[in-house]
Amino acid sequence: MKISLLGGTGDIAEGLVLRWTKAGHDIYIGSRSEEKATGIADGYNKRLFELGIESDIQGGVNADAAAASEVIVISLPYEYAVSTLEQIKSSLEDQIVISPVVPMSRVGKVFMYTTPAQGSAAQEIKEALPESVRLVSAYHNLPASELKEIDRVLDYDVVLCGDDDGAKEVVKNLTEEMENLRALDAGPLEASMMIEAITPLIVNLNVRYKPQHFSVKFV
Amino acid sequence: MKISLLGGTGDIAEGLVLRWTKAGHDIYIGSRSEEKATGIADGYNKRLFELGIESDIQGGVNADAAAASEVIVISLPYEYAVSTLEQIKSSLEDQIVISPVVPMSRVGKVFMYTTPAQGSAAQEIKEALPESVRLVSAYHNLPASELKEIDRVLDYDVVLCGDDDGAKEVVKNLTEEMENLRALDAGPLEASMMIEAITPLIVNLNVRYKPQHFSVKFV
Repeated sequence: MKISLLGGTGDIAEGLVLRWTKAGHDIYIGSRSEEKATGIADGYNKRLFELGIESDIQGGVNADAAAASEVIVISLPYEYAVSTLEQIKSSLEDQIVISPVVPMSRVGKVFMYTTPAQGSAAQEIKEALPESVRLVSAYHNLPASELKEIDRVLDYDVVLCGDDDGAKEVVKNLTEEMENLRALDAGPLEASMMIEAITPLIVNLNVRYKPQHFSVKFV
Repeated sequence: MKISLLGGTGDIAEGLVLRWTKAGHDIYIGSRSEEKATGIADGYNKRLFELGIESDIQGGVNADAAAASEVIVISLPYEYAVSTLEQIKSSLEDQIVISPVVPMSRVGKVFMYTTPAQGSAAQEIKEALPESVRLVSAYHNLPASELKEIDRVLDYDVVLCGDDDGAKEVVKNLTEEMENLRALDAGPLEASMMIEAITPLIVNLNVRYKPQHFSVKFV
């Protein structure tokens, strides 16, 4: 599939790019500047060449990346997610958008989930998208460091939710192409807060139980 | 230890009573009526006798159960938790109180976490307790049906939080006496919302993936 990652650096983007390229998908990196996006794409191509994997990852401004894709991953901090989507709204039509976005803040010694007025980041983002775009909330709780070790088996669950069953099926398949990841459907988009809120909990556990990088499994 | 369960029926109470009695703890069942509490206690004693385990579980009104205990488990629905604790406030002093309480409601087809004004059920409950009582938030996400199968190995995590390290250590030990349960400390009491919100997520997954009863493990 044609998949773009808006703001394709850091966090889980690297692992998704490497693994999905290996699985044969076409990846497009979006950024605010074309130069930055091309630089990121070149870095990934170099890394994949070293791994012996053929790749032709493209880079471009967010609007071009989105327009060229069937699936778009919002690989941006919460603070920039809605404004970025609003800027590229004319390039959004019929795509599947994946939100791994989590609003959180540090309060004293602990990271806390900060509930948006709409109920969750995903519900807030939905308001910024055209009606025809299908939003799936997923990939909040994957440990970035394990994800980017491309041959590592990921024995975790990806809990996802959304209002379009077809879109969820696509994301489920993209998820389960990554070895041992299991996708669990938690229902409609309004369930997103309960998935998003696991992330700051994991961050707190990671701080306390260093060097462990926790993810979650429903057993 | 002397442990009471306020409202000792249903949900996770049965499993905790059976397993802690087997481990040698003294259990006291609290209820609004002495007659009801005695009936519940007798039922547990009968069940333990059938399992070949000696027991002398007592029943009494909530205030007496609390006054006789070192550890109190609030085994009550969210709706009754604060009012019950306020009624027995004069019997609360220096105990460790465990809150597995989760505020949730059904919205359409999905169970949703309903955030209390204080941030979480545990923080709301803390306001109803005397200063000397040490509150630990734990046991929200244990599957009741597996817990009450007394010989079943429970390969799950209990994520707990609270502001008193000594109290958390006691609850950690009580947890890990149950075979294979692992207690993970998620920090101060204000982290409780992120633990509590996992419960309605699990309920939704249980509905969708019937007959699975999910619990959670951080891996």
